Amino acid sequence: MNLKYNKELEQKYSYLSRTINEEFINIHPIQRGGLLTPEAHKALVAYADGYSLCDNCLKGRIDKIENPPVVDFLDDLSKYLNIENVMPTAAARKSKQITMSVLAERYPERKVVVVDSLAHYTTYLAIETNKLKVKEVPHKGYPEFKLMNEDFETIINQVREDEGELPLLVVLTHVDYKYGNYNDPNPIGEICKNYDIPFLLNSAYSGGILPIDCDDANIDFIACSGHKSMASSGPIGLLGFKDKYYDDVMVHSQIQGNLTNKSFSNKICTFMGCPPVYGAPLITLMASFPTIVKRTQKKFVEEESKKANYVIEKIQKIQDLKVLGKLPKVHPLTNVETKCFEEVAKSHPRRGFFLRDEFKERGILGLLPGISKEIKFNTYGLTWEQVKYFADSFVEIAEKYNLV
Amino acid sequence: MNLKYNKELEQKYSYLSRTINEEFINIHPIQRGGLLTPEAHKALVAYADGYSLCDNCLKGRIDKIENPPVVDFLDDLSKYLNIENVMPTAAARKSKQITMSVLAERYPERKVVVVDSLAHYTTYLAIETNKLKVKEVPHKGYPEFKLMNEDFETIINQVREDEGELPLLVVLTHVDYKYGNYNDPNPIGEICKNYDIPFLLNSAYSGGILPIDCDDANIDFIACSGHKSMASSGPIGLLGFKDKYYDDVMVHSQIQGNLTNKSFSNKICTFMGCPPVYGAPLITLMASFPTIVKRTQKKFVEEESKKANYVIEKIQKIQDLKVLGKLPKVHPLTNVETKCFEEVAKSHPRRGFFLRDEFKERGILGLLPGISKEIKFNTYGLTWEQVKYFADSFVEIAEKYNLV
Repeated sequence: MNLKYNKELEQKYSYLSRTINEEFINIHPIQRGGLLTPEAHKALVAYADGYSLCDNCLKGRIDKIENPPVVDFLDDLSKYLNIENVMPTAAARKSKQITMSVLAERYPERKVVVVDSLAHYTTYLAIETNKLKVKEVPHKGYPEFKLMNEDFETIINQVREDEGELPLLVVLTHVDYKYGNYNDPNPIGEICKNYDIPFLLNSAYSGGILPIDCDDANIDFIACSGHKSMASSGPIGLLGFKDKYYDDVMVHSQIQGNLTNKSFSNKICTFMGCPPVYGAPLITLMASFPTIVKRTQKKFVEEESKKANYVIEKIQKIQDLKVLGKLPKVHPLTNVETKCFEEVAKSHPRRGFFLRDEFKERGILGLLPGISKEIKFNTYGLTWEQVKYFADSFVEIAEKYNLV
Repeated sequence: MNLKYNKELEQKYSYLSRTINEEFINIHPIQRGGLLTPEAHKALVAYADGYSLCDNCLKGRIDKIENPPVVDFLDDLSKYLNIENVMPTAAARKSKQITMSVLAERYPERKVVVVDSLAHYTTYLAIETNKLKVKEVPHKGYPEFKLMNEDFETIINQVREDEGELPLLVVLTHVDYKYGNYNDPNPIGEICKNYDIPFLLNSAYSGGILPIDCDDANIDFIACSGHKSMASSGPIGLLGFKDKYYDDVMVHSQIQGNLTNKSFSNKICTFMGCPPVYGAPLITLMASFPTIVKRTQKKFVEEESKKANYVIEKIQKIQDLKVLGKLPKVHPLTNVETKCFEEVAKSHPRRGFFLRDEFKERGILGLLPGISKEIKFNTYGLTWEQVKYFADSFVEIAEKYNLV
């Protein structure tokens, strides 16, 4: 070993602390939905050790653990999402990768995945790592970046014509990372059903924030993210899938040791035995689940939309500022084009960092460092007092630079 | 949604608590090395939320985050293991799967992975999911289950003869899950070097417990487990690899959106962008790192071996009991064949569960439920007082059933 234990090492790693804490208002676009509930905080401390969830594992499979109630939980999740099966995965990206992989085995002649053009980079990487091809469905461009349902059908037909085969899969980003646009899965599910093409809803930003009914929307596969939108410490994803694909997903091991004859037919290859969510990721997801079910009820969802739309209304008086994406907001992830602040940055000694500084001085964290030409924020779960304070601070900063 | 929010749901998930806690002595075979350090406990609470580690991500890659010091940490880890590159993964099993996958791309004509016959099931699953074949190196059987270095060479030659190609990879289980046998990687590394075959050390049970020098042992790839042996909340694995394989592992994305022209050349396909270790898994591993470096120094390692060997010596007086695996112990994971207790279980009203009950009554947890014919335990990190109490309790239970 070239590394010796010393005081320097201790200094560097033994006192890790975080700047963003409860003293600040955190408006980080991808963090709001993942913040732990008080129940999850308690569970996290109780199950801090890596294999804590497996204390009473009797069957060698995390999805079969009864104490804590993992079996019940997966069953409840499947009711919640209204899809027949749910398995935990390492993350939503893994759920997408698995879906494409099992479909590529089932339909080896189909090589193209149709995705909306607001898809997350991990959707593209899932396609790439499965050696498949991407075909994008266009959006309508600035400023709304809207998807048109009929374009999905057009692209499906194009693929069929160009490839002589149907697409392997259609992926819809339920709420996208960039503009926070909400896309209704039902019309796309209907199209996929008519063409008999599997349909995946990527709900990494929405599952746990907005209600989802997979059966109603003809969704075959759904990818969720515990750490993004379900108040889990994570990383953890969910893969929901219809019974039709049960055997494709739940592939039991068949390998056998040539000398020992050891075999592992109980283990699922797709998840390498047990998906890597043994302790904190799964237990915090479970502990937050009652809150998740509660907060995706209509009245709470509408209240959260109101918060984002309130901020948007308040900041309209700022010059050279434009809210991007579809309005009014359904999901509170919001992208604002701030040419006004970009202009300020040009002559500010701190350049683009001035904006983050200004917010931080006012106790608000979560802005992308160095970026002044756009602000992405998320008001999810803030109190009304915090929402109002955030809107006021936004306007106050603009006033300071004579932009109102 | 078929699932409604109600009190029952709250009852089921909001109060999850763990039986194994600090009031008990936990001798669970796979848990001792993963128990958090006090520093990791603090970091866990501070970084409880899923994306907490990414507050200051400037480059869109977890391995490039400077605050907290991830870049430094990966560099320190590579010094610690003495291998040129280290990347985090979802778990050690994923590290093995990735290794085989990148080698299968590099050497498409090689189809066989040589493994010792004490390999973990996930080694087999990594082979299976990569559509490769397994070839086992025999062990010498009961009671030591010893591997012979020369057998590796024999099997390599057999593969070369049968397949007309070298094996793709040789995997050695540094310390195995079943008997806790320690296997010296150096002679196997030497053989692999001579035959020019990549060599993977699976150190899921040893990295963080025993010192490892990859360069000295000619190790090309190493798989470690943070939650098993490095005091991390996890799940998290490490993949260490030599520069020779840098481009094979660090495959940059090349996919491009056909309409948007979006590309993600900064993202690594192999890890789907960022490996799923964003918050608690990585931060707790980092916080425990100084302790890990310290505890793998010779004097601490020897002290831990002594504890296991102490228990073994004390229980020798029990009838019909045999310690399996190589002795004296190097790694404290111990497997004891307890025909004596199996005999008791036959007529006990609680059957095989009596043994776990007896230990639990004495404040000792972590035994496999329902199993009386063998006991797997791990004394790692127990105080000497706890070790002595455990040995005394073991003998006391035997005495109670007249087995001494």
